[in-house]
Amino acid sequence: MIIVFKKDATEAEKNHLYDKITELGLRYQSIIGEELTVVGVIGSEDKIRMLPLEAMPGVDYAMPILKPFKLASLELKEKTIVDVDGVRIGGDEVVVMAGPCSVEGHDMLLEIAEGVRSSGAKVLRGGAFKPRTSPYSFQGYGEEALEYLAEAREKTGLKVVTEVMEPNDVELVEKYADILQIGARNMQNYRLLSRVGESERPVLLKRGFAATVSELLMCAEYILSNGNMNVILCERGIRTFETGTRNTLDLSAIPAIKHQSHLPVIVDPSHGTGKSEYIGSMSKAAIAAGADGLIIEVHNCPEKALSDGEQSLEPDQFVELMDELRPVARAVGRKL
Amino acid sequence: MIIVFKKDATEAEKNHLYDKITELGLRYQSIIGEELTVVGVIGSEDKIRMLPLEAMPGVDYAMPILKPFKLASLELKEKTIVDVDGVRIGGDEVVVMAGPCSVEGHDMLLEIAEGVRSSGAKVLRGGAFKPRTSPYSFQGYGEEALEYLAEAREKTGLKVVTEVMEPNDVELVEKYADILQIGARNMQNYRLLSRVGESERPVLLKRGFAATVSELLMCAEYILSNGNMNVILCERGIRTFETGTRNTLDLSAIPAIKHQSHLPVIVDPSHGTGKSEYIGSMSKAAIAAGADGLIIEVHNCPEKALSDGEQSLEPDQFVELMDELRPVARAVGRKL
Amino acid sequence: MIIVFKKDATEAEKNHLYDKITELGLRYQSIIGEELTVVGVIGSEDKIRMLPLEAMPGVDYAMPILKPFKLASLELKEKTIVDVDGVRIGGDEVVVMAGPCSVEGHDMLLEIAEGVRSSGAKVLRGGAFKPRTSPYSFQGYGEEALEYLAEAREKTGLKVVTEVMEPNDVELVEKYADILQIGARNMQNYRLLSRVGESERPVLLKRGFAATVSELLMCAEYILSNGNMNVILCERGIRTFETGTRNTLDLSAIPAIKHQSHLPVIVDPSHGTGKSEYIGSMSKAAIAAGADGLIIEVHNCPEKALSDGEQSLEPDQFVELMDELRPVARAVGRKL
Amino acid sequence: MIIVFKKDATEAEKNHLYDKITELGLRYQSIIGEELTVVGVIGSEDKIRMLPLEAMPGVDYAMPILKPFKLASLELKEKTIVDVDGVRIGGDEVVVMAGPCSVEGHDMLLEIAEGVRSSGAKVLRGGAFKPRTSPYSFQGYGEEALEYLAEAREKTGLKVVTEVMEPNDVELVEKYADILQIGARNMQNYRLLSRVGESERPVLLKRGFAATVSELLMCAEYILSNGNMNVILCERGIRTFETGTRNTLDLSAIPAIKHQSHLPVIVDPSHGTGKSEYIGSMSKAAIAAGADGLIIEVHNCPEKALSDGEQSLEPDQFVELMDELRPVARAVGRKL
Repeated sequence: MIIVFKKDATEAEKNHLYDKITELGLRYQSIIGEELTVVGVIGSEDKIRMLPLEAMPGVDYAMPILKPFKLASLELKEKTIVDVDGVRIGGDEVVVMAGPCSVEGHDMLLEIAEGVRSSGAKVLRGGAFKPRTSPYSFQGYGEEALEYLAEAREKTGLKVVTEVMEPNDVELVEKYADILQIGARNMQNYRLLSRVGESERPVLLKRGFAATVSELLMCAEYILSNGNMNVILCERGIRTFETGTRNTLDLSAIPAIKHQSHLPVIVDPSHGTGKSEYIGSMSKAAIAAGADGLIIEVHNCPEKALSDGEQSLEPDQFVELMDELRPVARAVGRKL
Repeated sequence: MIIVFKKDATEAEKNHLYDKITELGLRYQSIIGEELTVVGVIGSEDKIRMLPLEAMPGVDYAMPILKPFKLASLELKEKTIVDVDGVRIGGDEVVVMAGPCSVEGHDMLLEIAEGVRSSGAKVLRGGAFKPRTSPYSFQGYGEEALEYLAEAREKTGLKVVTEVMEPNDVELVEKYADILQIGARNMQNYRLLSRVGESERPVLLKRGFAATVSELLMCAEYILSNGNMNVILCERGIRTFETGTRNTLDLSAIPAIKHQSHLPVIVDPSHGTGKSEYIGSMSKAAIAAGADGLIIEVHNCPEKALSDGEQSLEPDQFVELMDELRPVARAVGRKL
Repeated sequence: MIIVFKKDATEAEKNHLYDKITELGLRYQSIIGEELTVVGVIGSEDKIRMLPLEAMPGVDYAMPILKPFKLASLELKEKTIVDVDGVRIGGDEVVVMAGPCSVEGHDMLLEIAEGVRSSGAKVLRGGAFKPRTSPYSFQGYGEEALEYLAEAREKTGLKVVTEVMEPNDVELVEKYADILQIGARNMQNYRLLSRVGESERPVLLKRGFAATVSELLMCAEYILSNGNMNVILCERGIRTFETGTRNTLDLSAIPAIKHQSHLPVIVDPSHGTGKSEYIGSMSKAAIAAGADGLIIEVHNCPEKALSDGEQSLEPDQFVELMDELRPVARAVGRKL
Repeated sequence: MIIVFKKDATEAEKNHLYDKITELGLRYQSIIGEELTVVGVIGSEDKIRMLPLEAMPGVDYAMPILKPFKLASLELKEKTIVDVDGVRIGGDEVVVMAGPCSVEGHDMLLEIAEGVRSSGAKVLRGGAFKPRTSPYSFQGYGEEALEYLAEAREKTGLKVVTEVMEPNDVELVEKYADILQIGARNMQNYRLLSRVGESERPVLLKRGFAATVSELLMCAEYILSNGNMNVILCERGIRTFETGTRNTLDLSAIPAIKHQSHLPVIVDPSHGTGKSEYIGSMSKAAIAAGADGLIIEVHNCPEKALSDGEQSLEPDQFVELMDELRPVARAVGRKL
C-alpha cells in the first residue's frame, strides 16, 4: 500500500499515521519528494486494508499495490481444468454449451437437446428459475424444468448447466444440474456465492454487467474461499452507452483474466450482443481470443420463445455455426 | 407496441405476424410509409410482451410505447407518503437518515445516535449485515448489531433502517428495524424483493449502480406487486467512466422519478461520491432538486471505521451540514 | 511517480530502470516489501513523464502522484473571477446565461434577448456555428447570426457568448462575442484550444461528454498555458448507460473542480438533461452545489426551434425559474 | 417517424400537430390504442426531422424509424473496397497497418518500416501531429516527420497513413500521406470531416471513444456527402467503467457495421486495450469477427517511445503475431 500525504500535512499527522501502522505490527518506509511525501506500508495486505487510510488526517489518498484476490490468482496455480464428469473445461478443447434461454416444455427441450448434441455441444443450458426485469413476466417452470433437464441429460449424455437464484434453492438445483450457474444480476449476491462455494458442483459465474474483471475475480474468490475450486468464469457483456447492442461484449476480458487467473473463461455471445445475427462473428472472435468455451442460446422456434427470442439461434443456424467455429479453434491450436 | 418491418419483408411474413397478433386477441393497425411499413399493436401490453417480436421473420425491430410498470406509476396515485410511526417520508419535511456505515460496537453506536438525533436526523442508519467486495473483509456483526440498533431507537426515539441481504434474513431483521434496506447490489435480487414485498415494514430500495431509473421503478414494482406499498427509492450514484468520484451521483434521477412515479426518493451522497468533502454540496443539491430525504454516513471516528471511513462525516461536521441544509430546504418550500 | 516492479523482476531489470532515472537527472528511492519492490522517483514530474515506464522490462505498472495540471490548479491561486466588462463570473453573484440554442433570425433573437435580460440574465447565448450530428441538419447562420448577437448586445446590455468551431473562425467570432465557447465535442480539439488561448476574450470551455474532470482541467491548461487566464468551465452532462435523460448531469463535478482548481464553473442543465421539465430542479441543484452560473436554453417558440426544441424553456417558464432560483442562491450565500 | 401523444393530450393539441405535418407537405396516420394515441408521419425523413416534435404541446415523445445516414448505408451499395494504389482494403485480404505511435526520428522510422514490411504489413502508420492530453507533452515533429514517412514509403513500398488534426493541415498532409487519419478525439470535428471529404485521399475515420456505431456512421456520412467515397472505419475502443484496460475494445462494432454499411472496418488493438500483452488475442479476435484490417503500434524500442510505449509491440513480437494471424484469417476465408 502506498500512502500519499497532503502537501500541507503536519509532522503530527504523519506521526499519527506511522503510529497506527506500527500498532498493527506493520512496517513503513517514507519517500520525501520535492513536493510530496509518500509512504510505503510493508506487511500483510489484509491488515493494511483494515485501516481507513483516506480518512486519516493529513492523508491525501492511498493506492493499493497488491491484487486483492489470492485463490483466484496465477500465483496459486497456473491453470485450472474443471472436469465435469469427463467434459473438461479449460483444456485443449473449446466446450460449447447450448440450449434455450428458459425450459419451456418437455418435448421442446428434448428436441433442442438432441439437436445441439449432434452438432457437437457438450453441455445443455436451460433456465428453470429466471430472473426477470418485470414481476409480470414468465419466471420459469422451476423443479418441473429441472426434471426435464435431467431427462435430457440421460437421453443425450449432455451435461446440464442451470441457474440458481438464492441460497435456499441450491440443494434442489444440485440434485439435477452438473454445473450451477450464477447469473449476472447475482454476481455480487455474496450469500449465494458463499453457499455455492460449499457445493460439490462446479459453478459457472457470470460477470455482472457493471462489474470490472477485478470484481469478477473477487466474486470467484468468495466461492473458492468457501472450498469449491471448480469455478468457470463467463464474460457476457457489460453495460455501456452503446444502444445498438444489448450489451457490449468485452472480449478483452479473456486475455485480462488469463493474465491474472488460472480459472477457465467462457463467453456468452447471445446475452453479450442481444442480436442473433451477431452471434456468429462474436463466437469466432471469442475462440480466437482464447476463450475456453461458449454458451449459446438455441431455440427450435425463437419466435415462440417466452424469453430472449431475438437472441436465439435456430437449430440449423447452430449446426452451421459449429462448422464455422471448428477451423477457428484449430487456427489457435484448440479442438472443438 | 410499434413494430417496424424490414424493407424486404414479404407479404407472407407480414400476414404471419398479423395472425399471431389476432391469435392473442389483440388488434393491429398498419402504416405504409414511403420506405417502410410500421404496425401498431393494440390491446393489453402484457399480452403483447409475450410475443418475441424481434425474432419473427420480416420484423426489423419493435418499440414499446407504454411504461412497463403500473403500481409504481403516477397513474396509480399522485403521491405516496411513507409513514414510519410518525416520521413521514415524502411529505413537506426533508427526512435525514444518518449513522455509521456498519455498526461496530455498542457505545460507538449509542454515541453517534445521540449526536445525529440532536442535530435533527429522524432515522438511524447502520449495517448489521454488510455486503463486501472481498470475502476477507469485515462482514458485519449480525444480530448483535441489530440489538444495538434497537437499543439506540429506544434511547433516542430515532427510527432504524438497516440492510437485509437475503430472503432468510427478513424475518430476523423485521424484528428490529423500522425500515428494511435493499442494497444497490441486491436491487435486482428478485427473490429478496418479493420477500420484502410481503413484509409490513417500509422498504428503502437503493438504485443499482448500473440500473436505469426505469429499472429501479420495475424493481419497486416487484415489491409493490407483492402487497407492500411503502417503498422509498434511493439514488446513490451510478457507475461511469469518471474515476474522480466513487460513483457519479445522478441527481436528475430525482425529477425523472417525480415525473413518473408517486414514490418518495431520497439521496445517499456518501456512497454517491465516496468523498466526505463533497457530501455537503451534494446534500444541498439533492434537497434543491426535490429529494424527500438524505441518508448520510456519520462516524465518531472515521479513521477507525471498519468500512467506508473516507466517505463519513464526523459528528460535528454533520451538525454544521444540517445547519446549512435548513435554508436550502426552506428555499424550495420544504422543512428540515 | 511510484513504480511497481513485477514479482519476478530481475536485478538487471531493476538496475536498468535506476540507470534511466539517474540519466534524466532524477533521484529514486526503493521500498522492498514482503512480496513486491516499489520505487519512488523524485524530481521534475515533467521529466519523469517522458519515460514510458510501463514499457520497461520488469516494470508492472506506474502510478503518478502529482496532478498533471499546474496553471489550473489551486496551487497557482485560490480563486479566479472572470470579469466580462463588469459581469463577474466566479464572484458572489450567480451569473445566468440564456438564449436560444441557435440564432434563427433577427426578430426572434431580439425578442428573446429582451425577455431574458428583464428576467435577470446577464449573458446572451446563441449559436452562429452549430456542430450537428447529421450533415443534412441546419448548421447555423454564421456571420449573419453574429451580427444579430452584437445588435442584441447593444440593445440590451447583455454580454454575448457563442461557439467557435475551428481555429480559422476565432478571429471572426472574437469581433462579435464577449466570451468564446468551446463546445463539448471540441473539448479535446487541441489546436482550437491553443488558438483561443491566444485570444483576449474569456473562454467558456464545456466538458466533453466522455471526459473526466481531470481531463477537463487538462484542456483548460492548454488555454491557460497559451496565455489566456480567463477560462470558465462548464459541466453539461456526461454519457452513461442511462437513456431516460439525454446525458447524465454530473453535479459532483462542481465540488470536484472547486477542490482542485481556482477556475469558475457553470452548469448547462438544458444539454445536461435534454428535457425541459427537468431544467428547473437541476438549475436549483447546481446553484445549491456551488455553481458560479448557469447556461440555459430559452426559445420563444420551442416547437419552431431548428435545434434542441425539446430542451428549451419558453420565456415565461424562464421568468418563473429565475424567481425560484433566487431564494436558493441566497440559501447558499450567493446573489442572483 | 412515430409520435406518441401524452395520455392527456387534447384534441386541439393533436390537431395542431396534424396541421404542422401537413404544412410541411407530409402525411400522417394515427393509431388509437386503448391507452394512447400514436401517429406515424409519412414522407421525407429530412423534412420530418426539421420539426422539434418533442417540444410540441401534447407530444410525449417521438421515435425515428429510419436510419439517419444514407450514403454510408447498405442501401446505397453492398460493399466498398478502398483501393490505395493497389492495396485493397475491404477485399479478401486482411490489411495490416503498423508502425510507431509517433515518428520520433529518421533512422528509427526507416528501421521499423523495413521490419513491418518484411512481416507482411502493407501500410505504415506514424504520427507527425499528435493530439496529446497535456500541453506539456511531445506534440509530434510535424512536416519533418511527414518527410520521413514519404521516404520510408519510397524505400519499402508501404503506403502511409497519418493523422491530420485540423482543416488547415489537410493540404500539407495530403502531399505526403496515402491515407488521412481522423483521430478518435476529432471524430466529431465536423469542419475537419467536411474538409477531408473534399480530399482525393482515402480517409481512415476512428470511432470516438464515446461514440455509438450509429454516430460513427453519421460522421462517415459527413465525409461521403462531401464527395469522398473512400472511407475506412476503425474501431479503437470505447470508454467504459472498466479500468483494467485503457479502453474497452468493442468488437461487436464489426458485425454491427457490416449489417448497416458497405464501408470497410479495421481494428486498433493497441489503443483499444492499452496493453501490449493483450494485442495478440484481440488481433486474432478482430480478424475472426470479420475485420478488414488491423492497425498496430510497433516500436523498435518501446521503452524509449515518446508516446504510448506500453501498448507497442517490438518488431520481433510483431513478426510472431503476423505468423499467428495467418491461420485465423484462413479459418474465416480471408488472406493475410
